[in-house]
Amino acid sequence: MTVRELVVLGTASQAPTRTRNHNGYLLRWDGEGFLFDPGEGTQRQLLLAGVPSSAVTHLCISHFHGDHCLGVPGVVQRMSLDRVAHPVSAHFPASGRDHFGRLRAASVFHDVLDLREEPLTADGPVASGPSWTLEARRLDHLVETFGYRLVEPDGRRMLPEQLARAGVAGPDVGRLQREGSLDVGGRTVRLEEVSAHRPGQRVAFVMDTRLCDAVPALADGADLLVIESTFLEEDAALARAYGHLTARQAATVAAECGVRTLVLTHFSQRYPDPERYRDEAAAVFSGDLVVAADLDTVPVPRRAPT
Amino acid sequence: MTVRELVVLGTASQAPTRTRNHNGYLLRWDGEGFLFDPGEGTQRQLLLAGVPSSAVTHLCISHFHGDHCLGVPGVVQRMSLDRVAHPVSAHFPASGRDHFGRLRAASVFHDVLDLREEPLTADGPVASGPSWTLEARRLDHLVETFGYRLVEPDGRRMLPEQLARAGVAGPDVGRLQREGSLDVGGRTVRLEEVSAHRPGQRVAFVMDTRLCDAVPALADGADLLVIESTFLEEDAALARAYGHLTARQAATVAAECGVRTLVLTHFSQRYPDPERYRDEAAAVFSGDLVVAADLDTVPVPRRAPT
Repeated sequence: MTVRELVVLGTASQAPTRTRNHNGYLLRWDGEGFLFDPGEGTQRQLLLAGVPSSAVTHLCISHFHGDHCLGVPGVVQRMSLDRVAHPVSAHFPASGRDHFGRLRAASVFHDVLDLREEPLTADGPVASGPSWTLEARRLDHLVETFGYRLVEPDGRRMLPEQLARAGVAGPDVGRLQREGSLDVGGRTVRLEEVSAHRPGQRVAFVMDTRLCDAVPALADGADLLVIESTFLEEDAALARAYGHLTARQAATVAAECGVRTLVLTHFSQRYPDPERYRDEAAAVFSGDLVVAADLDTVPVPRRAPT
Repeated sequence: MTVRELVVLGTASQAPTRTRNHNGYLLRWDGEGFLFDPGEGTQRQLLLAGVPSSAVTHLCISHFHGDHCLGVPGVVQRMSLDRVAHPVSAHFPASGRDHFGRLRAASVFHDVLDLREEPLTADGPVASGPSWTLEARRLDHLVETFGYRLVEPDGRRMLPEQLARAGVAGPDVGRLQREGSLDVGGRTVRLEEVSAHRPGQRVAFVMDTRLCDAVPALADGADLLVIESTFLEEDAALARAYGHLTARQAATVAAECGVRTLVLTHFSQRYPDPERYRDEAAAVFSGDLVVAADLDTVPVPRRAPT
């Protein structure tokens, strides 16, 4: 499976609205499913998005305000009900261990889920698979908060014409990829001759936070940046006071960090027209811009080989 | 305020569906709001129903399976966010005290709600106001479970023609009501002469349970009975095994207990057509029958004076 896409489950900050559920984002990445910040109702939003609970392999919680974690009990209990057999790892700020424990055991259920708690204590890589490393970095909010990014190692893209010219075909292609060179009728074919550099994809997930060094560090070179923009610039003082970003701040970081697709979300109820977020961000960011709506699906843009 | 109505917030058992949120029922009764079994997403369902969080004055939890309580954190936090100033009492099986504690403190929030925990340890009255007594009674489910009913004391309805004939008017009417008799120009007017017996209204809330003595005890003479009918009779064995009722069982109790309006709810996903519940219940119950849908509003039928 090489599906790499973001499924937006909810987009409201603080309290849900008629059109926006509490936060929730599923990043589908090959066979993995990273569920970021499941707010209340995420179980049902997954259903509305057509995603089975078994798609989730990692829970990633930025912090323990309710709009970022009250969906944990429902998701965990649903996975247990669905007899999900694979292990699920849970990443969250270590200072929220008690909160996670309460969410984990919020009500009575037949618990068969293999959930592995992996509390975060420092910046750095927290988990990895063949095509990704999950990293966390401490942000600046009212309570301890971590942002995340998923980084794919750089690789090489095989070039069919060069392969044919070099006479490499069938199982030899895989061998060449693994071993770096191959003897073909007495001639040594090197991987570099028949492939191009393929930069790995990167997805960053930044919420909730004031502007701080960790924001560009996470957003750096992201193909997809999912970032809170709770406020508009006219309320920059409120944003600062409550530990949030404005759409302009988020978009400025995205522009400076070479982000390709920018997903704004976690909207305050105080602005009824979401186009205001778009206008403010588009003034400083010229890449693909998504003002997220519930149940949007956003593909992770492929990187051109260099 | 004399609004007495049931606001159906959710109707799904176990897991939500596209059309049914997890359980949740608000009984509006004069100025009170009894929130029964708030499942996950109740906060948003209240919003969709147009009910402010301040309408809730009592939380009544039958048991601590997730579909009956995972909405507690969202409701409590929303009430706190909305600065609800009145006290809220929480009734739940005492054996679930730890679960309630975890739901109460599930995530970080600025907690200003005056929430008073009143765990249930025995059958009987648990709270009362001028126009109601809330009673609880132990049911028969997989975990300790209580059903509830709200009982209004019988009263008297003043008869304007008789009052006029007896020469009682203005503040004297209240005095007559309070004191039972009144001297009017040398003649004693007794309350019974100028008023009719008005039976109090009753609303019962029964879930989850197998058939047991407490079910008819709660349903007895109810004007409105809200009752789980998770299964159809064809799956009576499953209903028994999982501690639930069938639509036929629920409707039979309602018929035998003189229930006026029967609200069936807490439906299993296994029957896509809700009309099957109606057909099964209507075969044995001839009163008003509601196969509940999310966001339905059902008035408590007034009792005719006798």
